[in-house]
Amino acid sequence: MISRVLSADLPAHVGSRVTVAGWLHRRRELKSVTFLVVRDRAGLAQVVLPPGAACDLPEETVVQVEGLVTASEQAPGGAELTEPAIIPLSGPAAPPPFDLYRPALTATLPTILDHAPTTLRHARLRAGFRISAASVAGFRSALDALGFTEVFTPKIVESATESGANVFRLDYFGRPAYLAQSPQFYKQAMVGVFERVYEVGPAFRAEPHDTARHLAEYTSLDAELGFVTDHHDVMAICRDAVAGMVASVSKRARSEINLLGAALPSVPDQIPEIHFSEAMELISRQTGEDVTGEPDLAPAHERWLCEWSAREHGSELLFVTGYPLQSKPFYTYPDPARPRYSYGFDLLFRGVEIVTGGQRLHRYEDYLAALAARGESPEPYAAYLQVFEHGMPPHGGFAIGLGRWTARLTGAANVRQVTLFPRDLHRLSP
Amino acid sequence: MISRVLSADLPAHVGSRVTVAGWLHRRRELKSVTFLVVRDRAGLAQVVLPPGAACDLPEETVVQVEGLVTASEQAPGGAELTEPAIIPLSGPAAPPPFDLYRPALTATLPTILDHAPTTLRHARLRAGFRISAASVAGFRSALDALGFTEVFTPKIVESATESGANVFRLDYFGRPAYLAQSPQFYKQAMVGVFERVYEVGPAFRAEPHDTARHLAEYTSLDAELGFVTDHHDVMAICRDAVAGMVASVSKRARSEINLLGAALPSVPDQIPEIHFSEAMELISRQTGEDVTGEPDLAPAHERWLCEWSAREHGSELLFVTGYPLQSKPFYTYPDPARPRYSYGFDLLFRGVEIVTGGQRLHRYEDYLAALAARGESPEPYAAYLQVFEHGMPPHGGFAIGLGRWTARLTGAANVRQVTLFPRDLHRLSP
Repeated sequence: MISRVLSADLPAHVGSRVTVAGWLHRRRELKSVTFLVVRDRAGLAQVVLPPGAACDLPEETVVQVEGLVTASEQAPGGAELTEPAIIPLSGPAAPPPFDLYRPALTATLPTILDHAPTTLRHARLRAGFRISAASVAGFRSALDALGFTEVFTPKIVESATESGANVFRLDYFGRPAYLAQSPQFYKQAMVGVFERVYEVGPAFRAEPHDTARHLAEYTSLDAELGFVTDHHDVMAICRDAVAGMVASVSKRARSEINLLGAALPSVPDQIPEIHFSEAMELISRQTGEDVTGEPDLAPAHERWLCEWSAREHGSELLFVTGYPLQSKPFYTYPDPARPRYSYGFDLLFRGVEIVTGGQRLHRYEDYLAALAARGESPEPYAAYLQVFEHGMPPHGGFAIGLGRWTARLTGAANVRQVTLFPRDLHRLSP
Repeated sequence: MISRVLSADLPAHVGSRVTVAGWLHRRRELKSVTFLVVRDRAGLAQVVLPPGAACDLPEETVVQVEGLVTASEQAPGGAELTEPAIIPLSGPAAPPPFDLYRPALTATLPTILDHAPTTLRHARLRAGFRISAASVAGFRSALDALGFTEVFTPKIVESATESGANVFRLDYFGRPAYLAQSPQFYKQAMVGVFERVYEVGPAFRAEPHDTARHLAEYTSLDAELGFVTDHHDVMAICRDAVAGMVASVSKRARSEINLLGAALPSVPDQIPEIHFSEAMELISRQTGEDVTGEPDLAPAHERWLCEWSAREHGSELLFVTGYPLQSKPFYTYPDPARPRYSYGFDLLFRGVEIVTGGQRLHRYEDYLAALAARGESPEPYAAYLQVFEHGMPPHGGFAIGLGRWTARLTGAANVRQVTLFPRDLHRLSP
């Protein structure tokens, strides 16, 4: 490696000459002195030029700076480099299109995304992705501790089974194929193998909606488990996964949370729960708008319910259970006591649905009946149905949309701000 | 959850009545007594039927068995269930197409793959996937400890940049798009953001070869890091990643390794290294076949070199460095002292290349020159080249093919045996 000291470690080297390396983050030319700020993966290092000296390298030039580590109360971390010798490591950079050192990027989101390789270097954007990564690590470690096995299932699939629309079609060696909208069928099959599985991977939706929370490709945190009594067992595991995500962010990305001025939710041992039918009655009663016949929650209802949950239960997280069966996929388990409703649930967080889950059917004959009830032939599902012929326990699972989660956690108004190189109806590059 | 004790925990409950739940793994009808073996995620539980009793549930039926835990030297773990009450949890299963309880599946690989949801339940297949998962966990924890950040980059891309052939084409909202052959361009861009990044995700190759080591979709463990002196720094990190994978398998999947009779390699602090040109001379000298003009290693040469490494260096791992520049992608860094050769490397393990890596170009003008030298226009690479205009440090990285790694580790002759639901020229289902 290029021999260097990371910026954060400078205070331990006061009095020695050392080398730092990173990006020329900022040049500050004051009347009497010029400061350079060098950014590396650990933070910022301040470099003081000798009186009268100047530096004409543009911001974002990669430099190596050898100098004397000098204690300074004004410098980040309490030490700075003086008497520097500066060597550019790859020639001067083209000046960046934005002042990356300013507290916020002042550009529209499309412009920021067009220049993603550069704008992602901004501290606020980097913070979002560090929080995202910490969340995923927490998801995995929570489920590892609960006996789950990680799986990697195929993303190219034979039939667009889950819903006819919204799938990307592919030329597969001259045959049609599709991109998986979720690992749903495969994670269920893997319950038959490992009982408890999770997967972190891409999911693809040919989503024609141009909204702040839909993308054509997103990272999905999926889990599925067997031997449940009902959907409440799935919700309990979901709660543990979310608690693990929050704990991991708190541990691994605390400074990023602070930088963004974000607050971590407290995850109650038991996340409050409301049945869909009760939720609709409550909304109707409180807002005067009769929504009791609706098959699903509108975004405004999700926001309203989250406010209600915060007020009533002191929780930013709220499970909505028992969605109408007709609004859920065919594999959803019906509520035996009220067959119009299902054992499907959503988890709402700060006004938005971030998790969808539920108990699934597990008997072969129930699948045949559910497909028949929807007027669908079992034929395209042959490979999937095979799973249920050979013994499947009662099971269920859930999927967390990583972008939605991170957006809620960081206060980003749009999932595109917390998705690396997002893909949507209009955007395929960079 | 369905209230139960896991099979592995039975010995702690001798003398109590408990419930186990799992799959009816095997029925053994002896002259005097019938045993049932129940499989759950923790192992096997033996159930003894009362004299004269029979069980007509087919294998793979999901059952719940309540019974008295009784010490028994013959039982797995030293305890079995007697006086059982057996309840099928989802009706009798269709008899499985294979005897999953036998030590090995006696069917051809295509047949095994056609029935994957069932055959994956076999202990030997499960073992492979547990080893795979443990390997990935080790990769991540080794790199986490080295200051890497995990990223999730898009798999739908605008241009088939890395090589014109072998890419899957997609209809993206009426426009052409492609499936990413690797996260190469994005992980390089992310070096500009986090210095050190890794990604575990799918890679897609429209691979027309029908071999034991190529698939149309595979899981790639990718890493990329900045501020390297040359490719040896990348190789050092690659060594640490592989060592982390072996350590994790040893810790998390020891019993699976034992079941397969596999041996873990020892990973030397410094993996031996041979330059491509030396390797070719050595092969020519030893085999009598003149290969010194060849641009790449043939599979037979990789096998030969691994035997040589084991003999000469006592190492099952061998780096081959300095591949001819012409056989490497345009972003490969040339050896300044011998510009016909590159700073690209492969890691061979037990006869097969399991890692490809190298130092990359980092100067904008070098990219323009490299593309020009290959007669390519910079135009399709505009989004990629943007990265290098704004300051990139010397950097490099590597990619480990998860299937190839696991196949070598477990002795599987074909990557399809250790890939969940593999995709190839002929196979798109299940």
